[in-house]
Amino acid sequence: MEFSSKLIENAVKEISKLPSIGQKTALRLVLHLLKQDESYTNTLTDSLKKLRTDIQYCQNCHNISDSFICNICSNPNREQSLVCVVENMQDIIAIENTHQYRGLYHVLGGVISPMNGISPNDLNIETLIARLPNSPIKEIIFALSPTMEGDTTAFYLTKKIKPLGIKLSTIARGIAIGSELEYADEVTLGRSILSRTNYE
Amino acid sequence: MEFSSKLIENAVKEISKLPSIGQKTALRLVLHLLKQDESYTNTLTDSLKKLRTDIQYCQNCHNISDSFICNICSNPNREQSLVCVVENMQDIIAIENTHQYRGLYHVLGGVISPMNGISPNDLNIETLIARLPNSPIKEIIFALSPTMEGDTTAFYLTKKIKPLGIKLSTIARGIAIGSELEYADEVTLGRSILSRTNYE
Repeated sequence: MEFSSKLIENAVKEISKLPSIGQKTALRLVLHLLKQDESYTNTLTDSLKKLRTDIQYCQNCHNISDSFICNICSNPNREQSLVCVVENMQDIIAIENTHQYRGLYHVLGGVISPMNGISPNDLNIETLIARLPNSPIKEIIFALSPTMEGDTTAFYLTKKIKPLGIKLSTIARGIAIGSELEYADEVTLGRSILSRTNYE
Repeated sequence: MEFSSKLIENAVKEISKLPSIGQKTALRLVLHLLKQDESYTNTLTDSLKKLRTDIQYCQNCHNISDSFICNICSNPNREQSLVCVVENMQDIIAIENTHQYRGLYHVLGGVISPMNGISPNDLNIETLIARLPNSPIKEIIFALSPTMEGDTTAFYLTKKIKPLGIKLSTIARGIAIGSELEYADEVTLGRSILSRTNYE
């Protein structure tokens, strides 16, 4: 695309570097910004700059945080005996939005994936193991993706944590609520039969 | 959505004010920024700030420009006798990308639309008329949307400009290249028969 203005060209170039934003969308966003009050552009750019300079990672669970310890770890009302192991902070947001979990978290920062060159040493596994001795933690829940990499990671962690005598579990795999049985894939349907829940 | 960090919450809030970007996309962009080098966020925010503070509109054609007169109007190699009337600067970019037009432009800033309260006085029509007397302009091409509003605007402009003895034309309406005849709408197909081109 050719632009009559270098300023627009630069802004479009920078915005279209973001994932899933192409040149046409970038141009639309730029023209939108021009139509808005200048103060909006200032608030937007300030919030991005502040985000990039002031952000920290929780020293305990590696969640993104505004301070040394995140507000989940520092909240005394959370169940201190439960730790949910997740891949990244999006997963924490997803689980928090269910309002079904009141324990703590641990962010691995990914899953073991030899294909992508990610070994256990690249993940926050050592710090997870270090959290366990002499702590109130009684159960660890794996909330990892139902992929080969997720399963490998859960298996690796099980091997490491089992000797410490802590209960291990994984979130249920099965047919999603609201979906139709006939469209479910065989593996999910198969697993959902194997791990069926009894009526009490 | 609940976030463990106020910084992320603010950034997501500001980004999701942009058109077609929801909270989930905004969060994805924010996390992408966090994974990139800090310099990228700086370049991005600087280009947006600079855009907002330094942008100008061409005094001649109302195109967005880096200076008093845009680089299309100030280019002596452009055909000075042709002016293409468009709604907004996206249209200029679209036409420029065809590499088929070497004349000048005039940006109306919209089309006449009584439904949306846009009257001729809200558009850059006076400045268009003012450009015409004692100028090398011989032909004005209307490149407006094929809607009722676009047609109304073209009709209004024709009434105003015709007395000045300047040739007026409109871009061809017809079946788009590559499209199938049977899927064309009746109005377009009808117009394409009425304004058929003769083989020479």
